[in-house]
Amino acid sequence: TFKGKHNERSAVFADLSRGEYLQVRDYMTSQKSLDISANAITKPSGNFLFLIDLSLPKKAEVLGYLDGDHPAPAREATAVVFFGTRGEIKEYVVGPLPNPTYHRDVTYEMYNKTLPINARTVTIGEYVIMFKFLKDEVFTRLEKLMRESFNVSKDVTLNEFEGMPRGVRSGDRHTWVSFFRDMSGMYIHPVGLEVLLDHSSTNASQWNVTKLHYNGQYFNSVDALKKGYEDGTIKKIVYKRIDNYASLKPKRKPTGLSPQQFYAQGKRYSVKDNHVMYLDWSFAFGLSSLTGMRAFDVRFKGERILYELSVQEAMSVYGSVTPGMMLTKFLDSSIGIGRFAHELVRGVDCPYSATYIDTNRYIDTGAPHRFRNSMCIFEHNTGRPLRRHFSDFFHNNYGGMVNSALVLRTITAIGNYDYLWDFIFYQSGSVEAKVHATGYISSSFMMEGNLKYGHQVAENTIGNIHTHFINFKVDLDVRGINNVFQTKDMKYVNVSLPWMSGHHAMIPQLVEAQLKTEKEAALRYNTKTPRYLHIASNQTNKWGHQRSYRIQVVSFTGDHLPESEPEERSMSWARYKVAVTKHKDSEKTSSSLYNQNDMWHPAVDFSKYIEDNENIENQDLVAWITTGFLHIPHAEDIPNTVTVGNGGGVILRPHNYFDEDPSVNSPDAVFISPG
Amino acid sequence: TFKGKHNERSAVFADLSRGEYLQVRDYMTSQKSLDISANAITKPSGNFLFLIDLSLPKKAEVLGYLDGDHPAPAREATAVVFFGTRGEIKEYVVGPLPNPTYHRDVTYEMYNKTLPINARTVTIGEYVIMFKFLKDEVFTRLEKLMRESFNVSKDVTLNEFEGMPRGVRSGDRHTWVSFFRDMSGMYIHPVGLEVLLDHSSTNASQWNVTKLHYNGQYFNSVDALKKGYEDGTIKKIVYKRIDNYASLKPKRKPTGLSPQQFYAQGKRYSVKDNHVMYLDWSFAFGLSSLTGMRAFDVRFKGERILYELSVQEAMSVYGSVTPGMMLTKFLDSSIGIGRFAHELVRGVDCPYSATYIDTNRYIDTGAPHRFRNSMCIFEHNTGRPLRRHFSDFFHNNYGGMVNSALVLRTITAIGNYDYLWDFIFYQSGSVEAKVHATGYISSSFMMEGNLKYGHQVAENTIGNIHTHFINFKVDLDVRGINNVFQTKDMKYVNVSLPWMSGHHAMIPQLVEAQLKTEKEAALRYNTKTPRYLHIASNQTNKWGHQRSYRIQVVSFTGDHLPESEPEERSMSWARYKVAVTKHKDSEKTSSSLYNQNDMWHPAVDFSKYIEDNENIENQDLVAWITTGFLHIPHAEDIPNTVTVGNGGGVILRPHNYFDEDPSVNSPDAVFISPG
Ligand SMILES: [Ca+2]
Ligand SMILES: [Ca+2]
Ligand SMILES: [Ca+2]
Ligand SMILES: [Ca+2]
Ligand SMILES: [Cu+2]
Ligand SMILES: [Cu+2]
Repeated sequence: TFKGKHNERSAVFADLSRGEYLQVRDYMTSQKSLDISANAITKPSGNFLFLIDLSLPKKAEVLGYLDGDHPAPAREATAVVFFGTRGEIKEYVVGPLPNPTYHRDVTYEMYNKTLPINARTVTIGEYVIMFKFLKDEVFTRLEKLMRESFNVSKDVTLNEFEGMPRGVRSGDRHTWVSFFRDMSGMYIHPVGLEVLLDHSSTNASQWNVTKLHYNGQYFNSVDALKKGYEDGTIKKIVYKRIDNYASLKPKRKPTGLSPQQFYAQGKRYSVKDNHVMYLDWSFAFGLSSLTGMRAFDVRFKGERILYELSVQEAMSVYGSVTPGMMLTKFLDSSIGIGRFAHELVRGVDCPYSATYIDTNRYIDTGAPHRFRNSMCIFEHNTGRPLRRHFSDFFHNNYGGMVNSALVLRTITAIGNYDYLWDFIFYQSGSVEAKVHATGYISSSFMMEGNLKYGHQVAENTIGNIHTHFINFKVDLDVRGINNVFQTKDMKYVNVSLPWMSGHHAMIPQLVEAQLKTEKEAALRYNTKTPRYLHIASNQTNKWGHQRSYRIQVVSFTGDHLPESEPEERSMSWARYKVAVTKHKDSEKTSSSLYNQNDMWHPAVDFSKYIEDNENIENQDLVAWITTGFLHIPHAEDIPNTVTVGNGGGVILRPHNYFDEDPSVNSPDAVFISPG
Repeated sequence: TFKGKHNERSAVFADLSRGEYLQVRDYMTSQKSLDISANAITKPSGNFLFLIDLSLPKKAEVLGYLDGDHPAPAREATAVVFFGTRGEIKEYVVGPLPNPTYHRDVTYEMYNKTLPINARTVTIGEYVIMFKFLKDEVFTRLEKLMRESFNVSKDVTLNEFEGMPRGVRSGDRHTWVSFFRDMSGMYIHPVGLEVLLDHSSTNASQWNVTKLHYNGQYFNSVDALKKGYEDGTIKKIVYKRIDNYASLKPKRKPTGLSPQQFYAQGKRYSVKDNHVMYLDWSFAFGLSSLTGMRAFDVRFKGERILYELSVQEAMSVYGSVTPGMMLTKFLDSSIGIGRFAHELVRGVDCPYSATYIDTNRYIDTGAPHRFRNSMCIFEHNTGRPLRRHFSDFFHNNYGGMVNSALVLRTITAIGNYDYLWDFIFYQSGSVEAKVHATGYISSSFMMEGNLKYGHQVAENTIGNIHTHFINFKVDLDVRGINNVFQTKDMKYVNVSLPWMSGHHAMIPQLVEAQLKTEKEAALRYNTKTPRYLHIASNQTNKWGHQRSYRIQVVSFTGDHLPESEPEERSMSWARYKVAVTKHKDSEKTSSSLYNQNDMWHPAVDFSKYIEDNENIENQDLVAWITTGFLHIPHAEDIPNTVTVGNGGGVILRPHNYFDEDPSVNSPDAVFISPG
């Protein structure tokens, strides 16, 4: 039933294919001068091809191709290499695909600095060594304690969870590893043992345990803990069996099926490769291993509304009295958000009848991996009207239409948390980017002072207070790329009544302004900001008003880390509810792969995009949107946080963009009048 | 397939039946001493039985009946009589139903004052006279102008829309009537003529046109306008035919059907009379003609969570340069919110397969009216998980469940606007009250200075800036009626790192407080309020934390009318995002039927509930919640405002109420592990 022609030029935004990953890998590993390994468990001391991902072409080139008669930009990949031998990280652009002939070191061009090796993500190769190290140096040497306190044996082990950042200053790679029961849902099974591992050296023989924390007590070495335990001078934990309250196994047999949506007359959307068409909408989509889901070239009735809508970063700051968590500040894109987009479960993660899409990734493995059904697309009937009016004054009739919209979704399970990412395309011309959190909270062992940082949520388990901050990149192009940043709001003005002399009243007036520089346009949380924010064209609609899209942020954020903290610059985007900058190809993302492990000298400090305070009048504007929520865990976060109330997002709404609501043309409209 | 037993005692909350309305009407009109008419078009000079509605029994009596062995409280009705002959309004309680034997004047008991007759709502009886008056005194006398400017003829007329309040001080009944083209969707067809009608007297022969406004010019009398028009000294409007851009008729043939939800295995809820059961939920519901939808005795797993959840008021303040709208402040419950709950359209207003419920009302008519299918109940699969986790670290499995929830809905079309009211019951123990706005905006004729108050949205039509404020009553009873009002939030605290002497970090801590008096607990908009608000019991859950429900408000409100304005006290609830008061049977509602027409001495001034600053520790608490949004109309509000982004609400969430998420027991849970 679907009509319309897909835009094959959307291929410029397509994620790399399995074949392309292999070609880039093989090209890079065959460069003798680089001496790179693609072995999935390359040691930190080796040179490891960590990541291959699409290198997005320059916007001007893409627009020339999409809108003009320019040739397609070269198809290129980004390759990230961890050079253990040289103590540095390099980013290369490799091209042209499918048969690469060149690679170019773009590290400095991208970050204006060199990237020290310890800014790298911990690889599987490094984890293999870490886990063995902990087994040999901690578990084995503390055999009696591990057995008596935690029931550790040949058959029973504990699982690890790391705090981040790994230290307090640049170059540090000192990780507090906390231990959890080896049960499904381990994140809410802390046992009260934490170990500070110095793995700064790429040579694992130089690694050390420099501190331990057991049942609230600190020790300077494994031997000190062992001695204290054995001579009975310390407070011991005595193992106690416990049921797995973290289990997600159903406790009741199914007694019925929730209502199901079905397409009674076929799907009204079409997906071809990375291009989607749905009623008046069309867009390209992709999934970056690092930043996650994204859409490009979003058009309504053929007109581009957005050049890019993408997830940028998910950040959390934790509070605790336990060392593993007290400094913890997670920056998920440094581990990879899209990396953890796994298979979606039909009927739970997306409706049964959704279209499921496979993605391919190359990150921290020796080969590309296919993730089956890791994105989904479906039309969803929200069960409420998009608009309606019933009239029985003077005229008797009814008109309305149901709110049925297209959803593009992925769910990323980054360790304990699962983030649900939705881009929703409404028939009224609005696009919504929404995030919900679910999965397991992070937790810490119950000990003195820890109730200042959260509530007890299970046996000896504290659910720690933390923030969720999420950043989206919203590159609206409203009637072309030259736009302005408009604000609108209300104020009460004292007005005298023209028909009643001497009588005054306070009457709401419209207040409009235009923010002209990047610093004016960086709207901080905790300041009063205008209620309506618009990316506008100087072109006007039929009624003489500037055509615009309004940015409506839905947010429940907590407090952002004080700027005095040395880690803050790695997450400086979270200062702003909305920050509008001049588009630059060199300012692709608000965070980076390297921000987590060198928070103190981050490869990307978003606030620098604003520091040059460029003029943003009639420029290509990008809005960076922060949403999120404060999370004070409570018993109902066990076993999993629920999505209800735990999320945020942004709605992009046409505001004088059209001459009337475009949904008047929807085939879903209904009209009833007395016969 | 549904199991469970309905609670027949929910009948105490049931709206009056057709038979009960008739019995109350007949009883009241047969009281010779009262001399009341039930004639639907009783003149203002007569004594009119305006309203009959359920009189809610006292809470203590209801609880004694529901929870103890007390007898059912007497079933009683409220009857409102407009005594034109005596110049006052009276409220009576009439009982016992079904065979009334007594009526009691409760006016003073309810409002601590007498109610002047001009505080009354304009009745159909008064409108009939008003419309005739305008026809005779304006249309007929201005025949030439009406024809040339507006094409008015024997066959073509104009429609009226009123500004409110009707004047500037107590006793005033001076209404600016604006005229609109006689087209469907008239609200966005202003023609540029407004008339100030003094209808203060209950004797219509004393009514006057005291001012007119035509094409931006004021006149002191019909004659003055007529003279000016005829001698050509004024700026004229020349009639021009225009297509009806307000039409809701579909412009395209249907080309397919949006996805539909169906119950593959039967409904999982049951409705009997006014009682609903759904999985672990049960509640009673009703629809007040004045305040609208409400739920009572909301229980989860048999425990009462809410005694009452109800819509209270919908208020809007407008800005304009035109006289009809410049003072406009609508208080919808004075016209009747529930009054306008009309038939819901299957497949648009609610899903096809929803359960539709008839309601009966007696308001401003001589007889009860049945409104077919005016409420709906359905289970809705939101198309996203309520919770889920995918694990491939250490343990490989998946657990989750879809978010399928019960929705109770009504839609009220109060003149131009349609409000969509949803109460949603989630399997995680949360209840959400949500409102969305749709329907027509109010508009005014394009004239000099009017662009300060809005945007042009159609030919000669300004969509005027206005606020939407909505108030809900939330009477949570958390483990009984004795509760406290708790707040939680975060703060950064400078902490020294125990394992690294001399090193400090800012770490988020939990901040808890209890607000002990009504004034402390009145949380104003535009002040920093704690992020988590809880109605809590002193009983603790398994982990030692006070059992509570959290109140999470979702709101995009504009600025509330300054308190210096004399009309503000009639809407003083809108000062507060959340205000918690001690429950009183005498403080049933935050507004009243009489607030609109005597804004200056409102029958209910909500701020007085707080003024006595009662202690709220271990008391029966009621939270009054305000949500809403600032509306700056734009072209896309034509023909109708869309629901996307235009709403607000409140989520009531268990927070340490349970020992774990109750959805772990849902039959919808899914678990997958490697085979
Ligand atoms: Ca800049
Ligand atoms: Ca742009
Ligand atoms: Ca009080
Ligand atoms: Ca209560
Ligand atoms: Cu969280
Ligand atoms: Cu509005």
